[in-house]
Amino acid sequence: MLIVLEKDTTKEQVQIIIRTIEKRGYTARSIPGGDRVSIGILHNKGSVDAAQFLGLSGVKEVIPVTKPYKLVSREFRQENTHVTIGDAVFGNGTMPVIAGPCAVESLEQVLSIARSVQSAGAKLFRGGAFKPRTSPYSFQGLGEKGLEFLAKVREETGLPVVTEVMDVENFDLIEAYVDVVQIGTRNMQNFSLLRRAGKSKKPVILKRGMSAMLQEWLMAAEYIMEEGNSNVILCERGVRTFVQHSRNTLDLSVVPAAKKESHLPIIIDPSHAAGVRDQVIPLAYASAALGADGLMIEVHNNPDKALSDGAQSLYPDQFTTVMKKMDAIRSIIGNDQ
Amino acid sequence: MLIVLEKDTTKEQVQIIIRTIEKRGYTARSIPGGDRVSIGILHNKGSVDAAQFLGLSGVKEVIPVTKPYKLVSREFRQENTHVTIGDAVFGNGTMPVIAGPCAVESLEQVLSIARSVQSAGAKLFRGGAFKPRTSPYSFQGLGEKGLEFLAKVREETGLPVVTEVMDVENFDLIEAYVDVVQIGTRNMQNFSLLRRAGKSKKPVILKRGMSAMLQEWLMAAEYIMEEGNSNVILCERGVRTFVQHSRNTLDLSVVPAAKKESHLPIIIDPSHAAGVRDQVIPLAYASAALGADGLMIEVHNNPDKALSDGAQSLYPDQFTTVMKKMDAIRSIIGNDQ
Amino acid sequence: MLIVLEKDTTKEQVQIIIRTIEKRGYTARSIPGGDRVSIGILHNKGSVDAAQFLGLSGVKEVIPVTKPYKLVSREFRQENTHVTIGDAVFGNGTMPVIAGPCAVESLEQVLSIARSVQSAGAKLFRGGAFKPRTSPYSFQGLGEKGLEFLAKVREETGLPVVTEVMDVENFDLIEAYVDVVQIGTRNMQNFSLLRRAGKSKKPVILKRGMSAMLQEWLMAAEYIMEEGNSNVILCERGVRTFVQHSRNTLDLSVVPAAKKESHLPIIIDPSHAAGVRDQVIPLAYASAALGADGLMIEVHNNPDKALSDGAQSLYPDQFTTVMKKMDAIRSIIGNDQ
Amino acid sequence: MLIVLEKDTTKEQVQIIIRTIEKRGYTARSIPGGDRVSIGILHNKGSVDAAQFLGLSGVKEVIPVTKPYKLVSREFRQENTHVTIGDAVFGNGTMPVIAGPCAVESLEQVLSIARSVQSAGAKLFRGGAFKPRTSPYSFQGLGEKGLEFLAKVREETGLPVVTEVMDVENFDLIEAYVDVVQIGTRNMQNFSLLRRAGKSKKPVILKRGMSAMLQEWLMAAEYIMEEGNSNVILCERGVRTFVQHSRNTLDLSVVPAAKKESHLPIIIDPSHAAGVRDQVIPLAYASAALGADGLMIEVHNNPDKALSDGAQSLYPDQFTTVMKKMDAIRSIIGNDQ
Repeated sequence: MLIVLEKDTTKEQVQIIIRTIEKRGYTARSIPGGDRVSIGILHNKGSVDAAQFLGLSGVKEVIPVTKPYKLVSREFRQENTHVTIGDAVFGNGTMPVIAGPCAVESLEQVLSIARSVQSAGAKLFRGGAFKPRTSPYSFQGLGEKGLEFLAKVREETGLPVVTEVMDVENFDLIEAYVDVVQIGTRNMQNFSLLRRAGKSKKPVILKRGMSAMLQEWLMAAEYIMEEGNSNVILCERGVRTFVQHSRNTLDLSVVPAAKKESHLPIIIDPSHAAGVRDQVIPLAYASAALGADGLMIEVHNNPDKALSDGAQSLYPDQFTTVMKKMDAIRSIIGNDQ
Repeated sequence: MLIVLEKDTTKEQVQIIIRTIEKRGYTARSIPGGDRVSIGILHNKGSVDAAQFLGLSGVKEVIPVTKPYKLVSREFRQENTHVTIGDAVFGNGTMPVIAGPCAVESLEQVLSIARSVQSAGAKLFRGGAFKPRTSPYSFQGLGEKGLEFLAKVREETGLPVVTEVMDVENFDLIEAYVDVVQIGTRNMQNFSLLRRAGKSKKPVILKRGMSAMLQEWLMAAEYIMEEGNSNVILCERGVRTFVQHSRNTLDLSVVPAAKKESHLPIIIDPSHAAGVRDQVIPLAYASAALGADGLMIEVHNNPDKALSDGAQSLYPDQFTTVMKKMDAIRSIIGNDQ
Repeated sequence: MLIVLEKDTTKEQVQIIIRTIEKRGYTARSIPGGDRVSIGILHNKGSVDAAQFLGLSGVKEVIPVTKPYKLVSREFRQENTHVTIGDAVFGNGTMPVIAGPCAVESLEQVLSIARSVQSAGAKLFRGGAFKPRTSPYSFQGLGEKGLEFLAKVREETGLPVVTEVMDVENFDLIEAYVDVVQIGTRNMQNFSLLRRAGKSKKPVILKRGMSAMLQEWLMAAEYIMEEGNSNVILCERGVRTFVQHSRNTLDLSVVPAAKKESHLPIIIDPSHAAGVRDQVIPLAYASAALGADGLMIEVHNNPDKALSDGAQSLYPDQFTTVMKKMDAIRSIIGNDQ
Repeated sequence: MLIVLEKDTTKEQVQIIIRTIEKRGYTARSIPGGDRVSIGILHNKGSVDAAQFLGLSGVKEVIPVTKPYKLVSREFRQENTHVTIGDAVFGNGTMPVIAGPCAVESLEQVLSIARSVQSAGAKLFRGGAFKPRTSPYSFQGLGEKGLEFLAKVREETGLPVVTEVMDVENFDLIEAYVDVVQIGTRNMQNFSLLRRAGKSKKPVILKRGMSAMLQEWLMAAEYIMEEGNSNVILCERGVRTFVQHSRNTLDLSVVPAAKKESHLPIIIDPSHAAGVRDQVIPLAYASAALGADGLMIEVHNNPDKALSDGAQSLYPDQFTTVMKKMDAIRSIIGNDQ
């Protein structure tokens, strides 16, 4: 149980609250730091009745710690959150698809791919301008030039654009150009970045960390929501396991599990999970059948020459087929689950 | 490179073969034991031309070791293997479903469930008579009585029946009663059991080990095929990872990966992967969309009272819905992948 | 809570027990099958007082299910179990070392290695006669000939000998030749083999499964103890993880964790964990420092020509150095932990 | 093979280089972006001789891609790197210990612990001022106040102080106060933070990511070194696996594996790996025996009241015993490995 205090609570009020806790036989622990003052209740066996503290002067709210997240939780909000971006709604039973190349390479490239995926039915365009790369010697993205190309894609096609933000330093810049910011797998617990995303007006796609537990992932989303941004879309992209026949292991169970715990929409990125084109296609169908709230798929007009992750990018005609079949699958599954 | 010799090869022939290998600058290693004599070629850089040894007297065949399996390999056999059991064909683009309870509990139970799953479209009936249980104090199955009940199910419904065989000791008994023997995840590398299954005339469902690499799994199938039984069906049932929101993590990528490497049919068991009913249903749809060669799903007429794994068993009416939707999904995907 | 009944309990006695359970507001579930009849108590919130059932006629014992294992548990037996084999005692604070080649290859080989490891201080000799191999085309061991060589080693050196038993079929044969039987990682949940080992008079080394939880491992030991053999030695040999710089990941935390839960001795096999000689040596020192009850180390007189696992075998002079340093480390740590 | 060009290379020079590559039958891929221009050589079978490109005008260096890291690699620098901080040297065969509480809580607390660990032989003091916490509602650290307390510790005891830096925003502040900056497990691939650390004059402790491959970890260190800071200390702190009896699984094999690949010193943090005190002590002994270049151990004067991670903190008298035994173990192992 966590008792969150109002910001202007006086020392006297705090003392009264602590005494009230202790009188009931619990231990009170004052938690310093930050601008949020709170008091933890420890050594309670079984559940504590929140009502006995909610009335006290200075108490803002009482959070049960058995469920460590609050704002993201299905208990807190019963109905699905709908995140609306352009024509797309994530979380309402439709299944918008975000498509585009791993990295923005040139204006011609992004325009060509954008037109192609748009005609196949994609609702958003993706492309990396700042790329997180394991090696400092790998292609790091075009930077602001890449953002300009993305803006041009939106101007020409009307598709909202998504790109990854890697750090707080570049957040303002990226936010100014794009419609959705993506936080990548390596930054899922970059708490400063999460807080900055929480202050943004733009929706956030939060990719799951490479070995994140569901609860850790939801807590990362809680960081964003706690700062005021409730347009968060979770994105499963495979986790690291002992398996070596695919780059990562796509964890489809996390979709129903997350939906049970949280009201946030959850989409799937089969491209990064698989790492190879032959697996991306069946995993895309599986994702559609599973009832995901959307997909993110890499498409490249010339995968063999792609500057990054070419092996996992679909050819435009493959993507067109995949979109048709996913659509048909989706209509079978319905919205009942 | 492995040179497999004829059984009656003389010592003189072996000496000639070894000298031939050494003349070409390689190291020959004679591999004793078993009734199969063979010679390994070591210290070769790059690939070795098989032709230079195939003509030698006493040489039965030459196996390249870069692909350690042979009989199961797609290189060895280009076309899909079709395993036919009753009305069902695994591997020909259809998607037969095996259904039934985790454990056989009574004749009434199995007959009731069998009729129910049959009318929903299941092609085979499953039920455990000898159960592998983590605890010696858990329900271990009805044993031969359970087999009798399974035989009765076949008699009454015409459905072929599948059950797990846990050891060589009970193999003859089980083989006499059922149509398909299943080797469970804990026994995937029980090599004596694999060899015994290889001598059986009955098809074998080989479940993937809890942390088996694809190659280890295919090698386990190779043990069965090497003894002469080529009716092997692979079954993915989830692998062990750090994840805790599901019992295991269903590794759907292994389906396209296995199909690329091997001609054997591969089916999916979403029930054991998920461990909870709410996840089994979406994973079943995902499996159908993925292009699996079949599914194995647990169904119980009274899951709350099931003696084992009740939480993951579908109710009969859930199963009926699942079958209909899976069928529709399957027809969208087609046989083209 | 599990109520285990006497074998000759009458139906009337069972009815009385069940009624007693239900009167207390719990659900009774009769568990059929096997020669052990028992009744599970379900739907209890919190712990159930065993005393209220222990007095009933027909009740043999009451097992709390919160701790699913019983005989192996530290609660059941406070003091460490000492397993004595020849001069060696496992579990009394000393740290006997078992050494030898992965596979028995010839009499000369085993005698040479045995004399070498004995003079370095090893207390038992190990060598595989029947080898579990991923591939059916790999060297499968010398079989009974290998057992004869092991017996010869004991005759010549006085060292007790250890070998792996892979199946029930060969158990009698192996048991007749060797002093300790080893159950390998792939067979940790081969329950028929565990039961057979439980009926043996010989001590059993039970290796941890490749991805076994501590509790599953202890339950496997429970299978052996439940049949009457309490001379069980646990052996950690690395688990499967995403890591690729070693063959397996040696899980040293399992040693203090197992000692807390169980009274059984636990030893470490750094050779199979590491897979490469350079890592075996530091892991051996670490194991000694950790307070393990013993070690199992692979030593070969000519690792480069070994028929299996040569890369992980120490040279005899390396082993001599390792033994000296481990001994010195052990004397620092003392028996206090 | 990667050809790194000088910053001022002209388009003409680039064309000549590309033509030279293509004449030799390889494919050249120009890699745009960033201020570092480079050209990848693809489709080469076997190794490419660097000499043929090194002489070309505009070529700064040639990096073989089989070993993707360069500056951190043992090939690049044969001798161990020594990182000297105060009295401590990491990498020269000694084993300095860094000790202190998880979080700085008060001046009294840190002074008390610092004096205690100093008298036990610790060479550096650690304490978190800015804490990465899974939950936004958990204690986040004292912030700058905590840094002041750390500076006071150094003033009073002479011990250099270490603290974690979580983001680029606070880097200047932290750098001004402490002697060593630590990059935590969640930030191992926070590339902006790595680059900032690379521009610092302070030594950096780089913790391994929760599921990082050795190569990814070394590449993260490469990011730091590439910016000019060569005082990098690697720190193993356990990885995420399926295991549940400890918080993480300490991967000791990574120490000899990292030392083989890299010249950088590598230390071990058994506290975060284990998560429970009972396991920290034996893992500390194991780490000392393994030949680690140092340890980082959590010590708290009152673990039961610690604001974070109390369960894994040693009591001061436990730490004193651990230090003595580790020292004795270390002297046995020697510097020969």
